[in-house]
Amino acid sequence: MNRIITVGREFGSGGREFARCLAETLGYAYYDREIISEIAKRTSLSEKYIQNVAEHKPVIPFPIHTGRTFWAVLPDYNQDVQREQHGIIRELAGKSDCVIVGRGADYILRDEKPYRIFVYSDAESKLKRCRENSSSYYGEEREFTDRELSARIEQINASRSGYYEFYTGQKWGEKSNYDLCINTSFCNDLRKIAKAAAIML
Amino acid sequence: MNRIITVGREFGSGGREFARCLAETLGYAYYDREIISEIAKRTSLSEKYIQNVAEHKPVIPFPIHTGRTFWAVLPDYNQDVQREQHGIIRELAGKSDCVIVGRGADYILRDEKPYRIFVYSDAESKLKRCRENSSSYYGEEREFTDRELSARIEQINASRSGYYEFYTGQKWGEKSNYDLCINTSFCNDLRKIAKAAAIML
Repeated sequence: MNRIITVGREFGSGGREFARCLAETLGYAYYDREIISEIAKRTSLSEKYIQNVAEHKPVIPFPIHTGRTFWAVLPDYNQDVQREQHGIIRELAGKSDCVIVGRGADYILRDEKPYRIFVYSDAESKLKRCRENSSSYYGEEREFTDRELSARIEQINASRSGYYEFYTGQKWGEKSNYDLCINTSFCNDLRKIAKAAAIML
Repeated sequence: MNRIITVGREFGSGGREFARCLAETLGYAYYDREIISEIAKRTSLSEKYIQNVAEHKPVIPFPIHTGRTFWAVLPDYNQDVQREQHGIIRELAGKSDCVIVGRGADYILRDEKPYRIFVYSDAESKLKRCRENSSSYYGEEREFTDRELSARIEQINASRSGYYEFYTGQKWGEKSNYDLCINTSFCNDLRKIAKAAAIML
């Protein structure tokens, strides 16, 4: 059976960079935005649209109440994207040893017993990291103020949390759902942390 | 400044063994029950009594309500033990690089910025580990049933949680209060985990 590592991460914690370093250290395949590109190839939808749908819990446009029962009718595209995403994640996990970032992969692949890592950091550290990488995150002409950037970070993390909880029924970042939780607040050397995590497996 | 590592741990998770391996790997001093012995030396109290007082939140015998204000009068011995424990933990941290197990040391030494580790595991794994080590934990003539042992584990962890929250005002095991949280459910090789954690520092 292939060795699968899933990495959940707070936005701004450096989790993506950590995951890439971990995959490099181990010589494993690395999947993150590649999953979005693959969905785009298999559907007629744009990557931008898929990115949006695949990382947010759905806004339910047609809630139907029948007596005390609540039925949610999700938009077709949303269901398509989720179905493709689940299929692709399973397919990739079946191909070779790999590191998969986000997308509830820890839950989708729970029967394969992946090694589940969660990367987080404190608010100040997230702000600092985003400030250093803001161009790649936003590409905005005007720089965000600290307050605006902090609000944006919180918003993205609330969205990730909502998505995860909607599709898994589990609490995002709750340590009992992970094998290793790493706080990157006091360490910028993500390569060193990745090397250490590689030994833990 | 000395390098200080604190290890909080759920009872049954192997946290104490992990901490000892970590101290050995790093060549750091290791403090756990040694703190109790030191308090006993400095007071006229027995180690058994100190162990009990130093690991449980106090039972408050004289709660006083004045209007809407609540005053807690703690027994003198309890205050003595806590004072000695705080003093000894600070003293030990000032002596040399060290690993300190439990006793809210992460909070007591917060100004020294220790590297804070929390070790946990799922209920099944805790039961298995305690079953394998039951003689050293209990020394009972009759073996506990799984149900009895699970209840005992839960009780001890509830007590640790209560103690920590009473004296620190923080939630025990809440990942934002730690730099690294390690789930030992799927790994019995605590020496390997300790070696990896040593690299993270």
